[in-house]
Amino acid sequence: MTSTPTAGTRPDDVRRHNRAALLRRLHVDGPSTRASLATALGLNRSTIKALVDGLAEDGVVEERVPAQRSGAGRPSLLVLPQPQAAVVLAIDIRVERAAMALVGIGGQILARDSWKVREGNREPVEVFTKIVDYFGPLVAEQETPPVAIGVSVPGVVRHSDGFVHEAPNLHWADVPLGAWLSRELTLPVHMGNDAELGAVAEHLRGSARGAEDVVYISADVGVGGGVISNGLSLRGAGGHHIGEVGHMVVRPGGKRCYCGAQGCWETEVGERALCRALGIDEDSPVGAIVAELRALGTRGPEALSRLDEFVEWLTLGLGNVVNLLCPQLVVLGDLFTALPAPVVARVEQAVRERCLVSRALGGTRVVTSPLGSDAKLLGAAELAFETVLSDW
Amino acid sequence: MTSTPTAGTRPDDVRRHNRAALLRRLHVDGPSTRASLATALGLNRSTIKALVDGLAEDGVVEERVPAQRSGAGRPSLLVLPQPQAAVVLAIDIRVERAAMALVGIGGQILARDSWKVREGNREPVEVFTKIVDYFGPLVAEQETPPVAIGVSVPGVVRHSDGFVHEAPNLHWADVPLGAWLSRELTLPVHMGNDAELGAVAEHLRGSARGAEDVVYISADVGVGGGVISNGLSLRGAGGHHIGEVGHMVVRPGGKRCYCGAQGCWETEVGERALCRALGIDEDSPVGAIVAELRALGTRGPEALSRLDEFVEWLTLGLGNVVNLLCPQLVVLGDLFTALPAPVVARVEQAVRERCLVSRALGGTRVVTSPLGSDAKLLGAAELAFETVLSDW
Repeated sequence: MTSTPTAGTRPDDVRRHNRAALLRRLHVDGPSTRASLATALGLNRSTIKALVDGLAEDGVVEERVPAQRSGAGRPSLLVLPQPQAAVVLAIDIRVERAAMALVGIGGQILARDSWKVREGNREPVEVFTKIVDYFGPLVAEQETPPVAIGVSVPGVVRHSDGFVHEAPNLHWADVPLGAWLSRELTLPVHMGNDAELGAVAEHLRGSARGAEDVVYISADVGVGGGVISNGLSLRGAGGHHIGEVGHMVVRPGGKRCYCGAQGCWETEVGERALCRALGIDEDSPVGAIVAELRALGTRGPEALSRLDEFVEWLTLGLGNVVNLLCPQLVVLGDLFTALPAPVVARVEQAVRERCLVSRALGGTRVVTSPLGSDAKLLGAAELAFETVLSDW
Repeated sequence: MTSTPTAGTRPDDVRRHNRAALLRRLHVDGPSTRASLATALGLNRSTIKALVDGLAEDGVVEERVPAQRSGAGRPSLLVLPQPQAAVVLAIDIRVERAAMALVGIGGQILARDSWKVREGNREPVEVFTKIVDYFGPLVAEQETPPVAIGVSVPGVVRHSDGFVHEAPNLHWADVPLGAWLSRELTLPVHMGNDAELGAVAEHLRGSARGAEDVVYISADVGVGGGVISNGLSLRGAGGHHIGEVGHMVVRPGGKRCYCGAQGCWETEVGERALCRALGIDEDSPVGAIVAELRALGTRGPEALSRLDEFVEWLTLGLGNVVNLLCPQLVVLGDLFTALPAPVVARVEQAVRERCLVSRALGGTRVVTSPLGSDAKLLGAAELAFETVLSDW
């Protein structure tokens, strides 16, 4: 998004364009001084003042004298986006849990709810019904109703209408969830692949801020990847998400995967594989796995050796991803965020040594996500905000 | 490239911009009528006439009455780019062979030469010396000297100055080949990864014309990949090429690869693996391998079973690539172009069935390259033409 209007636009269009750009900037960067907004958007201070005044009148932003002054002269006023000025509903559907949140401008979670998903209530229509049931009470608590919905699904989703082609770990195929939701809740619905949305959130609000070429990889029951290329979310043919890293075959003849293939990466580094490595029940709840990983981190190098084989598979797959996509940064999400720091450091080191592309780049960084299990929820919110903010 | 000038440009800039756009169009699409150029560039016929007249005066294009007339009225004149109007030198460096060609506007090869590369003359300085030696005689034959050089190297290349970080199969590391060439031949030198350039050529002049999301995979001694995403060449961090598919580990604990890892895809589907599958010497020359593959294609299904294991590895790796990058089309290049048609059909079918992303896309197409071993040479020429045409 730039603040330069194209030739032939009318003053109204210019103002609208600039207002949307300013709002987007506040939404992503948070409170900013008028001076920094002027610099970032390439507009003069009087234009910024007029825009901010207009937005303040509408209650979208508030202005304050900054606590800390820099330099002499009159301090530049700090412009704060008001979360309640535009609220979206974010939904994160997973194999074992679903979460919903109302998210305000700036990415602030204003209210949230979640429920366990299991064998018995994982059917599309049941998940849909639950969403509708939870919608009323969640919205009732808030002063501002949502204006759009963003949904994260662990599968292949058609962006135009939120049709879920296939979500293997949910055992979903050909589910028109987007159409169901928009009809029932009478709001525009935007749906995307969970890992793609996680990557977006990490890029805007997480450890990948400012990085141009990033791969986000998350482990839950399934393992998925999202790619930021040249600062933008990368998509494949027909606008489909890319980065189905979990179904990269790394162990020919290995374990049978939900997708039908054998030896998929997720059978070696997904939730169940992690449970096996930790020596706990394969169906352990997420909380128990995280607790076990955290405990392991405190017990020293000896204890960590239990993860050796797991680390080997993690490294192998990450090396493949780095060789194929050449990112400067790999962000590990969800369950992977609980990996002890020495394990992450070891993986990073091994990828740097073994991987042709990483060597040439002077080393790919591998970090864990600071957003943790909220990444996909926040990414779903961004999907909804995209249209909301550009149409402001 | 668009034909719409941005606001504030002067008439001269507008004319230059439009002329470059028209030339680029002729370079890529070949002979076109004035009418189709007007439509494609969104310019009126009198502007097109002025531009074409100017280019014709400079000897860059020629105009002819088309042989076949369509419709009534005066026929729209056919505009033909004149190859000699701008010539570039393309160089394709491989493990076993190097080729040089003078390429004119429109992608026509005007003159070419090549030599065998082997253990004894594969050192960077020897390859460089050979290029310089061949340069004089090649250029002497032609009326127009080249104005830029494009070089394809099977390795990790820095685009800004043609520094070769690592080309494992050539055993090259840290070679400033770009600087050597530009100093010695006093021409601008543009260098890129071989598979990336192959992808560019396939997209402009091969089987991927008009496709937006394409992966090109070529097998020589090494196996490499290039990616076209949304119609553009995709690059990774720091502008590095992406798609090092040959070094994707698919057989943990498998054969040791030049890159240092074990079980890289190229150890299972590269030239040597193909020789093993065919039951011929691993060091067989390319011609012998191609002849053997062609012969196999004529001997029916029984004979093809010899390739079963090879096909299995090819399918596995392609499935991974499709799951990660979600292309609509995979183009197989170099040695793979000699694969019998039923083998390619079988691979395509298997990728469609096994691959989550391909299923959702309604099937990825897998085809062999019509450009064959010229793809990288033509891609190198395009790298040089990029600047030549935009600065016209």
